[in-house]
Amino acid sequence: MMPYSKQTLYMKLYEQFKKMINDNKYKAHEKLPSKRKLADSLKISPLTVQAAYDQLIAEGYIYAIEKSGYYVSKKVDVMPLITQKRKPENQEISTEDTYTYEFKTNIIDTSFFPSSTWAKLTRDVLAENHHETLNVTDPKGILKLREEITRYIEVYRGIQVDPSQIIIGSGGSQLMSIVIDILGRKEPYAIENPNYPKIYHLLKGNDVKVSLIPLDASGLSIQSLEQSSACIVHVTPSHQFPTGIVMPIHRRNELLNWANQSDKRYIIEDDYDSEFRYQGKPIPALQSLDQNDKVIYINTFTKTLAPAFRIAYMVLPKKLLPKYQSLILYHGCTVPNLEQLIMYRFMHEGYFERHINRMRNHYRHKLDILKDVIDMYPDALMIGQEAGLHFLLMVKKQVLESDWIEKARQHHIFVTGVSQYDHVRDFNHTEFPTLIIGYSGMPTDDLENAMHTLLGAIGLQKHEKS
Amino acid sequence: MMPYSKQTLYMKLYEQFKKMINDNKYKAHEKLPSKRKLADSLKISPLTVQAAYDQLIAEGYIYAIEKSGYYVSKKVDVMPLITQKRKPENQEISTEDTYTYEFKTNIIDTSFFPSSTWAKLTRDVLAENHHETLNVTDPKGILKLREEITRYIEVYRGIQVDPSQIIIGSGGSQLMSIVIDILGRKEPYAIENPNYPKIYHLLKGNDVKVSLIPLDASGLSIQSLEQSSACIVHVTPSHQFPTGIVMPIHRRNELLNWANQSDKRYIIEDDYDSEFRYQGKPIPALQSLDQNDKVIYINTFTKTLAPAFRIAYMVLPKKLLPKYQSLILYHGCTVPNLEQLIMYRFMHEGYFERHINRMRNHYRHKLDILKDVIDMYPDALMIGQEAGLHFLLMVKKQVLESDWIEKARQHHIFVTGVSQYDHVRDFNHTEFPTLIIGYSGMPTDDLENAMHTLLGAIGLQKHEKS
Repeated sequence: MMPYSKQTLYMKLYEQFKKMINDNKYKAHEKLPSKRKLADSLKISPLTVQAAYDQLIAEGYIYAIEKSGYYVSKKVDVMPLITQKRKPENQEISTEDTYTYEFKTNIIDTSFFPSSTWAKLTRDVLAENHHETLNVTDPKGILKLREEITRYIEVYRGIQVDPSQIIIGSGGSQLMSIVIDILGRKEPYAIENPNYPKIYHLLKGNDVKVSLIPLDASGLSIQSLEQSSACIVHVTPSHQFPTGIVMPIHRRNELLNWANQSDKRYIIEDDYDSEFRYQGKPIPALQSLDQNDKVIYINTFTKTLAPAFRIAYMVLPKKLLPKYQSLILYHGCTVPNLEQLIMYRFMHEGYFERHINRMRNHYRHKLDILKDVIDMYPDALMIGQEAGLHFLLMVKKQVLESDWIEKARQHHIFVTGVSQYDHVRDFNHTEFPTLIIGYSGMPTDDLENAMHTLLGAIGLQKHEKS
Repeated sequence: MMPYSKQTLYMKLYEQFKKMINDNKYKAHEKLPSKRKLADSLKISPLTVQAAYDQLIAEGYIYAIEKSGYYVSKKVDVMPLITQKRKPENQEISTEDTYTYEFKTNIIDTSFFPSSTWAKLTRDVLAENHHETLNVTDPKGILKLREEITRYIEVYRGIQVDPSQIIIGSGGSQLMSIVIDILGRKEPYAIENPNYPKIYHLLKGNDVKVSLIPLDASGLSIQSLEQSSACIVHVTPSHQFPTGIVMPIHRRNELLNWANQSDKRYIIEDDYDSEFRYQGKPIPALQSLDQNDKVIYINTFTKTLAPAFRIAYMVLPKKLLPKYQSLILYHGCTVPNLEQLIMYRFMHEGYFERHINRMRNHYRHKLDILKDVIDMYPDALMIGQEAGLHFLLMVKKQVLESDWIEKARQHHIFVTGVSQYDHVRDFNHTEFPTLIIGYSGMPTDDLENAMHTLLGAIGLQKHEKS
């Protein structure tokens, strides 16, 4: 197969005939010159003519009748391929502001990524079983990785399930798409408000009815959930985004009781960030309290490894497995086997646990630095810093959240406010404006300066020196 | 953070209190013993009591009132976590028959995969720009890979587009899901019949109306398409699956003319397998004939690299880009950056072209071996072997397709028939039973034996020796 750029003699001939046919120099079913006659008159090899005619046949311009010759095919108003030069337009030049400091929640400190281990494991896997690495296997994901995840979530999240209930996917959103396919688009959904915009838009994009449920101090309001028509609710009990609320046990039980009232009701537990809890032992997942196959559990390695790694997993209740089985006709596993086998070894050989412990210490250190700065300001308060990779920063000062964010921008700091994640009200926290401080991606050396600048931007004063 | 398995003193105390609260030994809002009193009576450190109480607070079992003490939280009928041992059930033991030979269309010959190149490129990429590799970038995929794909499809498929029109995804199905989100679920779809079951089930799973359009000798019947109510049609013009029909130019133009009749009409061109054409130059993609932003082009590296690699791409018409932009709120790129950067280098440094050429020669060699065997049988016929990684095997013998497949199974050969891909009729080819011979995954040394056995299974006779 030759690329279009290399023009050979037979291709020139082919192009000429194609043009003549397109320009109606030949009519439909008209006979072309015989190979020999044409070769003689052009003083070229009959094989060259043959090659050109073959290509015209392959593309359907002409047809051959045995022992008779070559004829032009039936024609249809032809729209020729206009070979205008491509102008390099719309080259996606970023129009974003350049910031000195970015408090973002979706980036991590990549300097800690165990690159050499990952490269070594890649080499090892590629040197091994080719068939397992390269050909399609189980749509749920590779069994030994699912077994490793089963062990991990039993020890760290109190979840006791069978590997057959684990589905591996390319991220939380991709797994949510499968959940929607399983649970259908007829029953109404509910999500926490405020929350990640992704979940909301994903549901809306699936033409699903979505209720927005407000939060109280314990997280999602069960009363509001009851009042909505929702059958399926998406929650972040370990560390609500963005408020950081850890759902207490009574609310978890209320939520499970809500689900137990109808066969159609399900809870989707998004356990993002749960690996990072800075004191005590981990809080068991909501799934671990579920006795009635009501909780679909979703987690990702995005926050623990790297956002660009795209490996996530979910736990399906056993009673939903038959419905999943009927879907795998079109849902193949989207994660490359190579990646899955490396992840398996990364977990199995203890690298993952060590990596998480290392990152947890690193993030705790970052938190301590920020806490020391914030403690200097009597009117600034940290909320929800016990877990996860962000906390809330509230100030006791009459200022609009949006004004604070704009002032930060003028000081070249990127930051978002809680109001921006509120889907319902277009409100603006005045009494206690609250920013979301994602600190995981900011270099350690920048933290102090960045926080002082952020608080100074609205004229906050430090304690008197004592 | 300690895993559940390591029981420390504070955790024992925490577990004890949790049990007492769950068993209603403590009522809601009842006060717990003070830290000092409890430490004294148990002869343990007050710090241990503090740690246990902190964990109970974190999980919402108790709350603290400053300068007063610790109280049991509001209670809800509690469903305790029953820590029964997991029985290893449903370990997914394959119940499949074991076959000596498999004529499958979705596997490839992995012995040719350039593992050492891939491992080297992985090491190189990991040694380089960490931020680019590990953090989330453009939802369409990494720009330099999209630029490389743009160059590739211009040279090999005659497609002239801007990199901003390229979207990278984890496979044909995942990209089809995005297409459905873009075009919506209201307009009816049409697909070729017979065809891949995946596309049909994917559309059905999206609650979309699907018409099945029969084929004639030129592929999809335009007359039937006109008679259906469909607005969006999915086609495989380069190599129809499973019939292998290459759509001729007049049918391509008819199809484009159909699309041009209404603003709502679109064509989805699935260009799978198009890299493997064994003679002449490649046939330009349908997309290259399109003047009116009517064709969405999808292709994948699955067949060229390895099924488990999960990198595919599509070309969106410019007028659909704004709609896509509104969706990226929840559709992040599902392909890991690492994989994308390796693929970029694999293409940019010329490995990809060399790999395809090598594979093309290898597959042509396999085809020749099979052709030599089939040519020995006067009643057996190869169809559609000019391109792709499968062909049709038809026999002039009165036998049911299903009987042939069953007889093959008895000879430990896996093979499928054309009827199995027909979504409409439950028919069974009797006059000319036709099998689908996917040869890409079968070891070269097995081909001769496998084909002789397959043809012998229905008692087909070889030519008299001449």
